[in-house]
Amino acid sequence: MADNDWTPPPVLLAVDLVIFTLRDAVLHVLLVERGVDPFRGALALPGGFLEHDREGVLAAARRELQEEANLDASQLHLEQLGAYGAPDRDPRGRVVSVAYLAIAPGLPEPLAGSDAARASWTPVPDVLAGRAKLAFDHRDILDDGLERARSKLESSALATAFCANTFTINELQRVYEAVWGVELDPRNFYRKVQATNDFIVPLGNERRAGRGRPARLFKAGNQTTLYPPLVRPN
Amino acid sequence: MADNDWTPPPVLLAVDLVIFTLRDAVLHVLLVERGVDPFRGALALPGGFLEHDREGVLAAARRELQEEANLDASQLHLEQLGAYGAPDRDPRGRVVSVAYLAIAPGLPEPLAGSDAARASWTPVPDVLAGRAKLAFDHRDILDDGLERARSKLESSALATAFCANTFTINELQRVYEAVWGVELDPRNFYRKVQATNDFIVPLGNERRAGRGRPARLFKAGNQTTLYPPLVRPN
Repeated sequence: MADNDWTPPPVLLAVDLVIFTLRDAVLHVLLVERGVDPFRGALALPGGFLEHDREGVLAAARRELQEEANLDASQLHLEQLGAYGAPDRDPRGRVVSVAYLAIAPGLPEPLAGSDAARASWTPVPDVLAGRAKLAFDHRDILDDGLERARSKLESSALATAFCANTFTINELQRVYEAVWGVELDPRNFYRKVQATNDFIVPLGNERRAGRGRPARLFKAGNQTTLYPPLVRPN
Repeated sequence: MADNDWTPPPVLLAVDLVIFTLRDAVLHVLLVERGVDPFRGALALPGGFLEHDREGVLAAARRELQEEANLDASQLHLEQLGAYGAPDRDPRGRVVSVAYLAIAPGLPEPLAGSDAARASWTPVPDVLAGRAKLAFDHRDILDDGLERARSKLESSALATAFCANTFTINELQRVYEAVWGVELDPRNFYRKVQATNDFIVPLGNERRAGRGRPARLFKAGNQTTLYPPLVRPN
């Protein structure tokens, strides 16, 4: 590569977004129905090409989320998942995609625009079971995003953001179960949740009536990092 | 972006490598001295452009490691760190770099080639203290690689790969200290190391003489994932 006449091959840069939310205690991912070729009519993660050569990659991701699903990304923490650059991943040419992840509660219904014919929250179990097939290598990107999200619940207090201001241990457990895709033992879960000081804070003697005996109520504490981490069952 | 005349701006794709090893109980990173502009004469991570538009990104990383440092990457586990694509990160134009990380014991002396005037193992503390300055955004990439390496030692048995076939707890502790950049309390460390079954296995009554009382000897067990993780001090 010391050859002075040689120039590197140009590639196209795309961005794709894995946006998770919880709806009715089920993990959902934002998918669009492609309105243009290739894969017209197929489900895909929202995304698209860099618009001009001075646009930042993260800025492009925010713009695409706005254009394709009418979701305001300015309030979302987008974290980079990685680059996807297999030579044959896009029939239009050599396209390298940088994927971003966000996990947020209470996101509104998306509204399709731009290259998307439709945009909707799709239950993640439907994708995992193969009932919703994705274009390009977007299933790989989704799988990587899911693993990252599951790992974030181990080391951070993120799960409380998916609960109401006051919540029961059982409600918190259901967030973990929805994201991890497993059933948890309530006693083990309660013990592990208490290992980090100020992860959740009991609300005195307030209890919520329900089936069985009234459940204690908690609110989120100030601790954002779980130490020790609350790890998934092996 | 529904405009049919519009074409996305072409970008150039590069790869960069963060390769860590331990030498004399100090973490070292592979750096090259750039033999070409821009940043000629500056230290940088090994790397370079995609060679042709059918080359895989990981394949390009392996090739660059071979070309610039004469290191055989076929035996290294290269893991992707992420994409670096700030519009102004490279004066030659819009260059997006995909960075890879490898952490391996016993790597040989590098031998400079291609665009590298020199290649050498550089102590990471020298880079962190600002005594070795890096070209482009390579310091950011190195910092991200270091954080990933530190995290890997929390959740995997990787550290034993940096010890001899039989080792003392103190030798294992020094690997953790070198990568984490902290001093650890021997008693806490010993207790935490034993939390994962089959992470390390005691060798009967064999002991190694040294200062103080003879130290027990261990070998690596079969467990590759630490559960619970061995987390850094807060």
